[in-house]
Amino acid sequence: MTIVEDAKKGLITEEMKVVAKSEGVTEDFIRRGIAGGHIVIPMTPYRKVKLCGIGSGLRTKVNASIGTSSDIVNVEEELEKARQAELAGADSLMELSTGGDFLDIRRRVCEQSNLSVGSVPLYQAFIEAARNKGGVVFMDEDDLFKITEQQAKLGTNFMAIHTGINYETVKRLKNQGRHGGLVSRGGAFMTAWMLHNEMENPLYRRFDYLVEILKEHEVTLSFGNGMRAGACHDATDRAAIQELLINAELADQAHNAGVQCILEGPGHIPLDEIKTNVQLEKRVTNNKPFYMLGPLVTDIAPGYDDRVAAIGASVSSAAGADFICYVTPAEHLALPTPEEVYEGVMSSRIAAHVGDMVKLPKTREADLEMGHARRDLDWERQYAVSINAEKARCIRNSRMPADSDACTMCGDFCAIKIVQKTFNF
Amino acid sequence: MTIVEDAKKGLITEEMKVVAKSEGVTEDFIRRGIAGGHIVIPMTPYRKVKLCGIGSGLRTKVNASIGTSSDIVNVEEELEKARQAELAGADSLMELSTGGDFLDIRRRVCEQSNLSVGSVPLYQAFIEAARNKGGVVFMDEDDLFKITEQQAKLGTNFMAIHTGINYETVKRLKNQGRHGGLVSRGGAFMTAWMLHNEMENPLYRRFDYLVEILKEHEVTLSFGNGMRAGACHDATDRAAIQELLINAELADQAHNAGVQCILEGPGHIPLDEIKTNVQLEKRVTNNKPFYMLGPLVTDIAPGYDDRVAAIGASVSSAAGADFICYVTPAEHLALPTPEEVYEGVMSSRIAAHVGDMVKLPKTREADLEMGHARRDLDWERQYAVSINAEKARCIRNSRMPADSDACTMCGDFCAIKIVQKTFNF
Repeated sequence: MTIVEDAKKGLITEEMKVVAKSEGVTEDFIRRGIAGGHIVIPMTPYRKVKLCGIGSGLRTKVNASIGTSSDIVNVEEELEKARQAELAGADSLMELSTGGDFLDIRRRVCEQSNLSVGSVPLYQAFIEAARNKGGVVFMDEDDLFKITEQQAKLGTNFMAIHTGINYETVKRLKNQGRHGGLVSRGGAFMTAWMLHNEMENPLYRRFDYLVEILKEHEVTLSFGNGMRAGACHDATDRAAIQELLINAELADQAHNAGVQCILEGPGHIPLDEIKTNVQLEKRVTNNKPFYMLGPLVTDIAPGYDDRVAAIGASVSSAAGADFICYVTPAEHLALPTPEEVYEGVMSSRIAAHVGDMVKLPKTREADLEMGHARRDLDWERQYAVSINAEKARCIRNSRMPADSDACTMCGDFCAIKIVQKTFNF
Repeated sequence: MTIVEDAKKGLITEEMKVVAKSEGVTEDFIRRGIAGGHIVIPMTPYRKVKLCGIGSGLRTKVNASIGTSSDIVNVEEELEKARQAELAGADSLMELSTGGDFLDIRRRVCEQSNLSVGSVPLYQAFIEAARNKGGVVFMDEDDLFKITEQQAKLGTNFMAIHTGINYETVKRLKNQGRHGGLVSRGGAFMTAWMLHNEMENPLYRRFDYLVEILKEHEVTLSFGNGMRAGACHDATDRAAIQELLINAELADQAHNAGVQCILEGPGHIPLDEIKTNVQLEKRVTNNKPFYMLGPLVTDIAPGYDDRVAAIGASVSSAAGADFICYVTPAEHLALPTPEEVYEGVMSSRIAAHVGDMVKLPKTREADLEMGHARRDLDWERQYAVSINAEKARCIRNSRMPADSDACTMCGDFCAIKIVQKTFNF
């Protein structure tokens, strides 16, 4: 029995207990969420991980994506990125290598990390076709399903699978056009394959078979967003919404079969369209967890895209997004370094908290504690509640004030010290 | 005649023409905005500056605050901060020194910079009292007005003046209490002075005299926010709103007398209260320009407060805030370095643009151009439209791909290249 089936039968599993405790909610709250498809706990029978719950009523979680590319294959560096992501407080990793020995890299990441790990099986299927047969369009669909199973057995907790790119979706895309093209690698691979082979997407056509595999290995299905906008001007367009509708329909089907489901969302969205995207996803999927890539709220700040995504992620999380994929400062420019991975996770964690302050008011307690610690000029308490105590301490210590109660911003004229003498808050 | 009086009489001045051109609006749009008090152009008869318009229908502007503290008095470094701020694209500077020779520092900043410069005259008045008379509470109110005039003559374009802290406001504060204390230095100085001397705030009591001085020297009056929350839990509280009401009343009075007015706002505000703050300010001030300090949307991320403020500033700008004071990564920890000033301005400029995309859709053209440049894999066009071309180029070049069309994120498996072969967007 899968956890969804357990939940529907009213059983509280060990995983539900762990997540309930870490979220400060009742075990039955988690059970009902999983039974209804509003909450998932990405699991795997093949590896012990630090479980994390994702969905309605839970804290927003942060994913860090790592992985080689055809240009840069340095397994040690990818392992270092995995470490930095964990150190920075990521809740999960996606291992998205497209260069080197896929199985070896994923195995080592899974061995090293305590976090839930996600993957995109079609990368491997398409890239092996490119390597061995001379083109992604020669991908053999049976290989795709075999690879999915193979990756599941490595201890993959969730998989991004591009089921929603079917004839309907491609028709919407063709009839509409795009300003920023297609930027999802999975979406691009699959669209090219479908058009070249004049065949329907096997992940859609043989969805029942896919669900069978995922169910057997208890993999959480994260519906890929192959049509996601790669430019703010393409946000919320017909192709993307068509794909969402297809995925939403399939997600009900998968959930009914006992598989946990998440839906991925964009991407690039102007600030004033984020709420619409979240509400639409929640409505058409019957409140399944929403996994957003930021979103990026402007296209003109390459080099700062972690900050740009933090703006979008704050607003999307506040509006109800449950799971945020980080963006690093190297986005749109290069494969990130371990330092950029760390920075990307930090920016996303800040955004997740800012959103949680709105949707889960109890998370504001940390801010209240900081307010009190600042009022009391108690620096150690301030560091203790800081998202990155080491960084905060380092900045202050680099320029220590003469009066160790204050800081060098105000020195002798610290507003708080002046007021302490006047009021007694 | 001041520019407000000119505008009311239907005259188009040289300043209005310059701003109309740089904003892409009609000269009469600017004139009407100034006449109605919805737009200001901070001016000074004593210095030639790059004029910037602030208010409804114009792009959101960014201020960078610099200045010494009692701990760190390094005039060369402050001048370097002014240079870095200008280089990063700030629209104005506030020179907020509280250490060293005030006049010398301000004179040198005004001489060096092309930007509008703001100041807070009461800092000098209170700190000179502390230096010469042994305490801020011994400040002589005549000195306060003299210093205001003296600073105006140095070529100061706008001044933050704490008029709204009067008996009523202090009563609200006392009756209510605070989680994070008072964090405005001006607010703390003035409150301490009032309570010690048992006298009403001279800036409120002798507001007509203040307006006379500002009018004579054509200084824009930026109503200080002495009660601003220093913790998210104090946001939108009775003391802050009381001060806003007092300032709003005075702003109508000053505008009627021919003085340009801006109102300063908080500070620290949870994401879901920002719109309320903007709407309230706009309503009670009859749509006068709103100058926000970020706001910071969480208190727990010292070391990252430029990013935190960018989240708040994006939302406040989208909701109608007109002018954003940057926050640096050193906020709450130390006086910023020139590098931190640069980073702070960049974060704020990103936020200003994100907000402008919502309230001024024509600003989205830059994003559209980036979308097209990315679709076409035209890197030079991408850099040309980037907010920081040098940084973007540097990240990409540090890890150049084998295929110079793509980048090392995807290498051979660039989604855009795959799709180029399939579609012809």
